Amino acid sequence: MKISIVTFDDFTDLDLFILWDLLNRVEDSNWRVKLLGDKESHVSTTGIEIKMHGQLDEANSSDAVLFCSGKGTRKKMFDEKFLSFFHLDEIKQLIGAIDSGALLLGALGLLKGRRATSYPSAEIKQYLESSGAEVVWKSFVQENHIATAAQCLSGQYLAGWVIETLAGVEQKNKALQSVAPLDDINSKLLSI
Amino acid sequence: MKISIVTFDDFTDLDLFILWDLLNRVEDSNWRVKLLGDKESHVSTTGIEIKMHGQLDEANSSDAVLFCSGKGTRKKMFDEKFLSFFHLDEIKQLIGAIDSGALLLGALGLLKGRRATSYPSAEIKQYLESSGAEVVWKSFVQENHIATAAQCLSGQYLAGWVIETLAGVEQKNKALQSVAPLDDINSKLLSI
Repeated sequence: MKISIVTFDDFTDLDLFILWDLLNRVEDSNWRVKLLGDKESHVSTTGIEIKMHGQLDEANSSDAVLFCSGKGTRKKMFDEKFLSFFHLDEIKQLIGAIDSGALLLGALGLLKGRRATSYPSAEIKQYLESSGAEVVWKSFVQENHIATAAQCLSGQYLAGWVIETLAGVEQKNKALQSVAPLDDINSKLLSI
Repeated sequence: MKISIVTFDDFTDLDLFILWDLLNRVEDSNWRVKLLGDKESHVSTTGIEIKMHGQLDEANSSDAVLFCSGKGTRKKMFDEKFLSFFHLDEIKQLIGAIDSGALLLGALGLLKGRRATSYPSAEIKQYLESSGAEVVWKSFVQENHIATAAQCLSGQYLAGWVIETLAGVEQKNKALQSVAPLDDINSKLLSI
């Protein structure tokens, strides 16, 4: 299984690393997670520089493609060259986004007639509606093979969906339980 | 205010970035968060290389010092050169650790006679007890100026404690609410 996380400059650290870290907890020698970008490395809003593992067009041959979030999405959603790399297939692939990464799904025409969530702002709502989405302010919204998550820590639901679908519910539970606050585990309040 | 996060090779991505991201959400021009290490950059267990912002001894002049977690702690807790950089003052400074970072607090003699939490394993419990700690399996344990948190997502409580203590409860609430899953905000289940 090949999982890709699409990254760009001016990304939000926690949005990227909650996906990256959880997806890397799957124990399967054929499971490979890659950070994809249009440069050799990308820099987050707080100045953290991260090396990429591959080019954007590798997303097209991935089993799952997740779009990161951050201020940089406001530039990338209008970047025709960036968008032209993607020829995603919602039948064969899982496709998802955290927070403002949904703007990129919208720009790629993947949210038409679909429910979607994102970071709750009037600006984002307007953009998503103009791309044909019905915006619902929930932590996680899944419609068939396309899913969106709202606010950084909901990245666990997005990563969990990918893991459960491609590696099974046991791997998902193991990954999510290994990062959940200990009180949630102790009290069995954790709903996964 | 100067906040330091102590990092090392073989760290856990999410442990570092939940602290780093949340602490950087404080809106105050005098608030500065730095990653400190004993090399120019450190590499996580999953292979992510991160540049450091300063040397370990800068921790001694910081208002808060938080120790990251990961497999690398098992080496660093016995690394006399690494440990010798730290002359922390639990009266003047806030001192904390996420997950196995508690092993480093223990090695520095900071947990003697104190309650502490960590990633729940028999190995860690044994080490912490041998350093004089009373191990309690809770998400977050604070004793005066020393705090420990258990499992990655409890990093929000550790970062929240530093933000509330040094920048006030409003800044803490703002930071934590900006990353909490949207359903928790909507249902007002969020207890911060």
